[in-house]
Amino acid sequence: MLRTHTCGELRLTDVGKQVTLAGWVQRVRNKGGLVWVDLRDRYGLTQLIFEEGSTDADLLEKATDLGREFVVKASGEVIERTAKNNNIPTGEIELKVSELEVLNPAKLPPFLIEDETDGGEELRMKYRYLDLRRNVIREKLQLRHRMMQETRKYMDGAGFIEVETPVLIKSTPEGARDFVVPSRVNAGEFYALPQSPQTFKQLLMVSGFDRYFQIVKCFRDEDLRADRQPEFTQIDCEMSFVEQEDILDTFEGLTRHLFKTVRGVELEEVQRMSFADAMRYYGNDKPDLRFGMRFEDLNPLMKGKGFGIFDQAEQVLGICAEGAAEYTRKQLDALTEWVKRPQIGAKGLVYIKYNADGTLKSTVDKFYSQDDLQAVAGLFKANPGDMILILSGDLGAVRKQMSELRLKMGEELGLRDRNVFKPLWVVDFPLLEWDEETQRYHAMHHPFTSPKKEDITLLETDPGAVRANAYDLVINGVEIGGGSIRIHDRNTQSMMFNHLGFTPEEAKKQFGFLLEAFEYGAPPHGGIAFGFDRLCAIFGGSDSIRDYIAFPKNNSGRDVMIDSPSSIAEDQLEELSIQVKIKK
Amino acid sequence: MLRTHTCGELRLTDVGKQVTLAGWVQRVRNKGGLVWVDLRDRYGLTQLIFEEGSTDADLLEKATDLGREFVVKASGEVIERTAKNNNIPTGEIELKVSELEVLNPAKLPPFLIEDETDGGEELRMKYRYLDLRRNVIREKLQLRHRMMQETRKYMDGAGFIEVETPVLIKSTPEGARDFVVPSRVNAGEFYALPQSPQTFKQLLMVSGFDRYFQIVKCFRDEDLRADRQPEFTQIDCEMSFVEQEDILDTFEGLTRHLFKTVRGVELEEVQRMSFADAMRYYGNDKPDLRFGMRFEDLNPLMKGKGFGIFDQAEQVLGICAEGAAEYTRKQLDALTEWVKRPQIGAKGLVYIKYNADGTLKSTVDKFYSQDDLQAVAGLFKANPGDMILILSGDLGAVRKQMSELRLKMGEELGLRDRNVFKPLWVVDFPLLEWDEETQRYHAMHHPFTSPKKEDITLLETDPGAVRANAYDLVINGVEIGGGSIRIHDRNTQSMMFNHLGFTPEEAKKQFGFLLEAFEYGAPPHGGIAFGFDRLCAIFGGSDSIRDYIAFPKNNSGRDVMIDSPSSIAEDQLEELSIQVKIKK
Repeated sequence: MLRTHTCGELRLTDVGKQVTLAGWVQRVRNKGGLVWVDLRDRYGLTQLIFEEGSTDADLLEKATDLGREFVVKASGEVIERTAKNNNIPTGEIELKVSELEVLNPAKLPPFLIEDETDGGEELRMKYRYLDLRRNVIREKLQLRHRMMQETRKYMDGAGFIEVETPVLIKSTPEGARDFVVPSRVNAGEFYALPQSPQTFKQLLMVSGFDRYFQIVKCFRDEDLRADRQPEFTQIDCEMSFVEQEDILDTFEGLTRHLFKTVRGVELEEVQRMSFADAMRYYGNDKPDLRFGMRFEDLNPLMKGKGFGIFDQAEQVLGICAEGAAEYTRKQLDALTEWVKRPQIGAKGLVYIKYNADGTLKSTVDKFYSQDDLQAVAGLFKANPGDMILILSGDLGAVRKQMSELRLKMGEELGLRDRNVFKPLWVVDFPLLEWDEETQRYHAMHHPFTSPKKEDITLLETDPGAVRANAYDLVINGVEIGGGSIRIHDRNTQSMMFNHLGFTPEEAKKQFGFLLEAFEYGAPPHGGIAFGFDRLCAIFGGSDSIRDYIAFPKNNSGRDVMIDSPSSIAEDQLEELSIQVKIKK
Repeated sequence: MLRTHTCGELRLTDVGKQVTLAGWVQRVRNKGGLVWVDLRDRYGLTQLIFEEGSTDADLLEKATDLGREFVVKASGEVIERTAKNNNIPTGEIELKVSELEVLNPAKLPPFLIEDETDGGEELRMKYRYLDLRRNVIREKLQLRHRMMQETRKYMDGAGFIEVETPVLIKSTPEGARDFVVPSRVNAGEFYALPQSPQTFKQLLMVSGFDRYFQIVKCFRDEDLRADRQPEFTQIDCEMSFVEQEDILDTFEGLTRHLFKTVRGVELEEVQRMSFADAMRYYGNDKPDLRFGMRFEDLNPLMKGKGFGIFDQAEQVLGICAEGAAEYTRKQLDALTEWVKRPQIGAKGLVYIKYNADGTLKSTVDKFYSQDDLQAVAGLFKANPGDMILILSGDLGAVRKQMSELRLKMGEELGLRDRNVFKPLWVVDFPLLEWDEETQRYHAMHHPFTSPKKEDITLLETDPGAVRANAYDLVINGVEIGGGSIRIHDRNTQSMMFNHLGFTPEEAKKQFGFLLEAFEYGAPPHGGIAFGFDRLCAIFGGSDSIRDYIAFPKNNSGRDVMIDSPSSIAEDQLEELSIQVKIKK
C-alpha cells in the first residue's frame, strides 16, 4: 500500500508514530513559514503541517505549490494539535510531514468538491466522477451498498437462493417498450433486455427452487421523467406454496430489517389497507400516512342545499387541515389558483374556516347555514383553528385533485417529515383496468396475477370489479414494491390471456414456454419486486433517485459523461444485418 | 404457507405431530392395500403412506392415481417407519396421510427427474425448468448462491463498496465485439452492453471510492465455444493507492475465504510464477500445478548427435511421466497419433523408457548412446519405471504441443484430481502481443494496463519485451481471474493508445472522458476481475460452466427454452429507426 493509514483513522493515541497517508488536497493554507494542508480520502480528512526550519526548504515550497485535488503521499510523524478541531474525528492530531510526493497533479475542478457545490446539474453530470468525490454523494452510494448487503443477509437467512436470470431475453409486446439487441449470429433476430425477470422467476418456482431472490438490473424504453431511468434496479423475489399473507410477512420482515440495520429505526407495524379504501380515503393507491386528513364524503351534507356546483357534481369531497384556519386571504387565493392549474384541474376551491370563537366561515355561506357547516365540521371532528377544504366533480377526477391538495397541505403544514417512516400494504387491487385508448382491459399488475377466487365468476360479467391477489408496499406515499400471487395453472393463464385480448396463437408465441411449464407440475407461488433505487432514496430521505445511482442517465437517456448513445461503424451495422433509417 | 414443514425436516422426534407437507411426487409404490409416495421438495424427500382401512377408500384411490411430478399437499400424522432408510435424513419416519390435495397435476416429463437422467442436452435445455428440478443441477446453483454471498461477505468486510455500473454504455472498437442497443430517443445512435465495467471502475477510483467491487453481468458478442456464453458474470474489483502485491494479497484472501467457507478446504499458499517461467516450464500461461512434469530443455543433450529432426529443430523439449514406462506399444502408438492430430500438430513423438533393470530404451537409439540417454534421464532425475516424452520444432509451437501432451499425460495418469486445488499467480505478463493479422501490437490485457517502470524505455526499441504490471489467478490450469495495475496519468495513457495504433482523435472520441478524468487527480490504482461462472465450475469440480448458469444459451447464442432471439414487429423497428437488411 502507498499508505500506512487512511485519512480518517489517526487519533491522539497515534501521536509519535511514523505514518504515511495518501489522498486528495482539500485545502492549502499558507501562513508564510507555516503551511497546512487538509488531506482527504473516502475515510476522512487529516491535517498535514509543514513548518519552516523543522523541515527543509524544498518541502515547504512543494507544499505551497500544491493545488486543490492534487493526489499526494505524505510521510511524517503524528503530533498533537495545538488548536484542536472537534468537528472531525482526526481533529486532535496532525501529521508533521517530512516527505511529500505528488502522485498526480490536478487541473482546477470545474466545480467545488464540497457538500455545497457551485456546480449545476449538467456540469456535475458531465464530470460525474468529480461529483462522486463529494461526501454527500458518496455517502448516498455507501447507503446503497449497505442496503444491498443487508438485503442479501436477510434473504439468505430466510432461505432464499439468489439466482441470476438472463439479460438477453425475448421481446414481448405486453407492458412498456423493450430495449432490443440485434443478434449477429441469428441474422434479423433480436434479443430484448428484461423489464423484469418475471417469467424466469416463475419458472424457477416450477423448478422447485422454492424461494428465489435477485438484486437485478431491469430496463424500460419509456419516455423519461425526472425520476425514471432507462435502467433501474429491482429486488426481485418469488416464493412457492405460499398465500398472500406469507409474502406480506416475509417482506415486512425485510423492510423492518433494513430500517433497523441501515437507519437504526425500529419500524412500527405495517398497516394494511384495501385499494378501495385507499382510493376512498386518500384518492390514491399510495397514500402518505405520515399525516391524517382523510377524505370525507360530503354528498349527504352538502348536496341539495341549492349550491348548483355541488348539486351537479357526482362527488363533493372534503379534508380537514388542522390548524390551517389562520391561512390568510392571500394564502387561500394562492391555494385556489394552485388547484385550478391545469396539472390539478379543479374548477375552484371551497373552504370552511373554524374560527377561534367557534363560528364557521365559508366561501359558500350563501347556501349553507351555520348548522349545515357545523354538521360538516362535526363529520371531521374539527376544532376551532382548523380549516376544511372542499372540492367537487366527477368521482375519479375529484379524488385525484383532492389527493394532490392533501399532499400539498401536508407539505405546507410540515407534516411530511423525511425522518418519519409510515409503511403500508395496499391490498386487493383490481385485476384489470380499462384502457380508453385501446378500448380494452389491461392487466393492472401484469398478466400473471391471479384473480381472487371469489371474484372469478365476475370475469365474464363485470371484469373491472374482479379483485386480484395483488399488493403494494407503500412508504410515505411512495410505491416501494409490488407483487401478487400468480396464476399457476394453464387454464386460468390461458383464460387471462384471452381476457387481455391475446389470441391463442399470440399467447403461445409469446408465453408458450410458460403455459407449457404450468403443465409439468407448477406449485402455487407468488412474489414481489421492490424498486431498489427508490427504496434507497426513501432511506436517504430524498425525492430523487438519481443521486443514488452511480452513473445515471439524463432525461433523454443520455450518459453525458461518456457521451452515449453514439453512432457506430457501418461495418458493425452490416455484421448485425441492420441499417439505420431515420424517418424524416 | 400451504405446509407446516418442508420435505427435508421431519425426524423421529416429530413422531405424533400433525403436519402438512407440499411438494412433487417422486415415486408411487402400490402394494394393493398399501400405497407409498415419495414427496420431494428443494429440502429433501419424505415418504407418505396411505393404508387401507386406516384411511378412507377415496384417499387410497387418490394416492394410487398420483403421477410423477404431480404437485400435492398432504396432511397427517408423523409415524415411525418400520423399515428405516438410512440413506436420507427423514428415513426414520413417514407421514400417515389423512388428507390429500392435488395442487396441480403434471404431464409425464420428457425425461427422468433424477440425478442420472435419460434426457439429452438439447431436450434438457428446452425444458430447462425441469432440468433445474434435478438435485444435481439445483445443487450447482446453490453452490453459486453460496459463492456470491461469501464473496460479498469478504469484500464488504474488507471495506469494498459494491457499486452498480451502467449496462447501457458506449461501443468501443477495442477488444471483442460489442452487443449494441439502438436508442429510440436518440435516433441512429446505439448503446453498447459492457464487456466489462473497466472504465467505470477506474473512474470510481478517480472519485475516491478507494475500494470498489461488483458481481456483474458482462457481454461479448463472440463466436461461441462450448465453454463461452454471450452473457457471463464477473467479480469485478478495483483498489486505490496499491501496488501489485496488495492486490495479490487481498484476492488470495478472497480465494482462501471462498475455499474455506464454501468447500471446507484450507488452501495452501498460492504460488507465484512469472509468465516467462510458466511458458518455459509448462508451455502455457495457466499451468495446472496439480502435477509436475515440468519441461526440460533438451537442446544441449540431444542436438548435435546426428538426429536430423532434432538438429534442425529450434527447440527439443521433454517431460518425464513418472511410472509410465509400462505403457504398451499400442498405447504409445495411440499417443503418437494423438500428438500428430491437426489440433496438436506435432510431427512425431520420441520417447525414452526407463526400464526396471536400469537400462534405457528409446525410439531414437540409433543416434543416442546409453550414456546420452542416461544424461537425459539424469536431467529429469528419472527413475526406473518412468518414461520421457520428447517433442521438437519451433519454440512457440513445441511449447504448445508439449503443454497439451503434458495435460493429457496428467489426465491419463490420474494426476488431475478434481478435489485437489492448486492456485497460482502468474505475474509479469508481456504488455503487448504482436498480431499477425493486423500487423501491429495489441494490448495483451487491455489498453489501461501499466508497463513496468523499468521496462518503459523498451517501448520504443523492443515493444514485445515490455512487461506489464499484470497478473492472473490460475487454479488447476484454468484462468480464474486477471488484472493489472492501471495507468493513472494522461501522458502514459496517451502514449499507450498511440502504441496501440489509435490516432489522438480516435483515442479522444472513445476514451476522452477517461483521459480527461486522469487530469483531475487520479490516484494510482489497480484491480482484478474473476470469471464467476468458471470459478463456480472449478469449485463444483466441473469442466463446463453451463450447468452453473440457471438459463444458459446454446452454442448459437440461442435460449431454446424461450426461443430467443426472435424477430420483432415492423413498427418496433421503425420506432427504433432501424431496419433489417440481411446480406445475401
